[in-house]
Amino acid sequence: MPTIELGLDTFGDLTVDADGRPRSHAQVLRDVVAEAELADQLGIAFFGVGEHHRPDFAIGAPEVLLGAIAGRTERITLGTAVTILSTDDPVRVYQRFSTLDAVSNGRAEVILGRGSFTESFPLFGYSLEDYDDLFEEKLAIFAALRDADRTGEPVHWKGTVRTPLEGVRVYPPVEHPPLKAWVGVGGSPESVVRAARYHFPLTLAIIGGDPRRFTPYVELYHRALAQLGHPTMPVSVHSPGHLAETDEKAREELWPAYQVMRNRIGSERGWPPTSRAEFEREVAEGSLYVGAPETVAHKIAATMRDLGVSRFDLKYSNG
Amino acid sequence: MPTIELGLDTFGDLTVDADGRPRSHAQVLRDVVAEAELADQLGIAFFGVGEHHRPDFAIGAPEVLLGAIAGRTERITLGTAVTILSTDDPVRVYQRFSTLDAVSNGRAEVILGRGSFTESFPLFGYSLEDYDDLFEEKLAIFAALRDADRTGEPVHWKGTVRTPLEGVRVYPPVEHPPLKAWVGVGGSPESVVRAARYHFPLTLAIIGGDPRRFTPYVELYHRALAQLGHPTMPVSVHSPGHLAETDEKAREELWPAYQVMRNRIGSERGWPPTSRAEFEREVAEGSLYVGAPETVAHKIAATMRDLGVSRFDLKYSNG
Repeated sequence: MPTIELGLDTFGDLTVDADGRPRSHAQVLRDVVAEAELADQLGIAFFGVGEHHRPDFAIGAPEVLLGAIAGRTERITLGTAVTILSTDDPVRVYQRFSTLDAVSNGRAEVILGRGSFTESFPLFGYSLEDYDDLFEEKLAIFAALRDADRTGEPVHWKGTVRTPLEGVRVYPPVEHPPLKAWVGVGGSPESVVRAARYHFPLTLAIIGGDPRRFTPYVELYHRALAQLGHPTMPVSVHSPGHLAETDEKAREELWPAYQVMRNRIGSERGWPPTSRAEFEREVAEGSLYVGAPETVAHKIAATMRDLGVSRFDLKYSNG
Repeated sequence: MPTIELGLDTFGDLTVDADGRPRSHAQVLRDVVAEAELADQLGIAFFGVGEHHRPDFAIGAPEVLLGAIAGRTERITLGTAVTILSTDDPVRVYQRFSTLDAVSNGRAEVILGRGSFTESFPLFGYSLEDYDDLFEEKLAIFAALRDADRTGEPVHWKGTVRTPLEGVRVYPPVEHPPLKAWVGVGGSPESVVRAARYHFPLTLAIIGGDPRRFTPYVELYHRALAQLGHPTMPVSVHSPGHLAETDEKAREELWPAYQVMRNRIGSERGWPPTSRAEFEREVAEGSLYVGAPETVAHKIAATMRDLGVSRFDLKYSNG
């Protein structure tokens, strides 16, 4: 019987108070700390926070927030969902997570991704044209830094996306290497194979549609690991959801926030407006885990069984 | 009677245990969290951590460490000593401190500096040849981001050290702008005038010699503020020290660690080896605050009076 873990993710969506007034970004961040404390007390396995760089989300510096959460929790694993490695510096990311790992007594892990939003590219001086090269090279650097802590050997790296690393070690080192690091993918076969190549566990971000359509990616990942001669690694799923006392209440609570958020993102990406019918389809057969606890538990269990994954992270905050 | 504040600074020097074995970087970081908790309980005004990127120091990601400290303290102000702005991204720095400010309920402040060590330049892909331009332009960006939170206006910036910022706001915004930010200087008149120009309070890093030789810089700062039509701003001092039950015990405890560290740094910078006589001179008349509490209190009070400064931050960890 494999270990089954349940995690919670949030992007720090800007919420409104009881009178409909938007809470400040700072208040949302403090709310997230309180939510993580509760998750820790309830025995949730993982708490992940996602980075955005736009007004409708409060989390722009995830590891600082996770540092505060580390100071107020005891058991829960702390990580990101995801760290946009493409527009960050792998050296800085490694330092931040090594520090988080130290102050949390080994509870840190990072999920590295290419980023699904595009705001961070111009903000940090990168071009979307370099989307693939940025992630490929930075993941190679990150993997090399991770190996350096295990072997004690300095890192030599040369490429196109940053200046060379000529025999450097990065401080502070991780206390018990390797640093736990996943690669988060949205459904590109190249990304799945890349995660296998660098021997990172795999996180599938399934944010819409029937989760079973990701079965080929899971199979591809395990096949790639085997072909590369790597031992097997865990696979996890990240999907959005909302719980309430009853199925109906959960749907009624989520629908207005879902609609606003989905149409805001959709208008940026050229999607047509969503509909209640689409929402209900996502709840019934897609990747929205919405309902009473028993309903959501059954749906999570089905997805984990269908895909053969060992951790399910529910993104619980929806505007 | 002006407010007088006492702060503590540490760079997370790698320490040894009772048997002389080096502690891990991770353990040193956890020790720093515990030291900050004690400082908070004792009513110390400020706790600052300094960033290094070399094996003899544990702090490479200060704001993550400060996040953990924020989660475990109630009153103490939290900051850096210093943040090497030259080799970081002002946008990222702003996001990290805004996040720290939120999770600490408004207790964050940043001290921005050019950096006295050089390791961070090659590590993060910068050239020491650009030392002045990097700090000048990045300080301008940081000041613009700080103003943007106050005015609500987006930032427009164009220069040479990073890609332009074309009408951006940075999230999360600081809850109660302006973000408290100092400029740390080591004794360059240009740096003092620059701090005044952007209307940052001034921190003097006085790490050797008679502190009174900094009097002209304090006068220059106040004169520059007045000429620019800015209201007056506080000045603080950062200097190293060590306390024990008696003056003699404090000196005997510090000397071996001081000697090792001073000569390690000195050999990198081309200084001749230090001597016990030089050490004793620094303790008697220079910028080492070493002795019994009463002795050190008198010396701190004299420096604050001589220079007319309102905060004194003692760097207490010395290898």
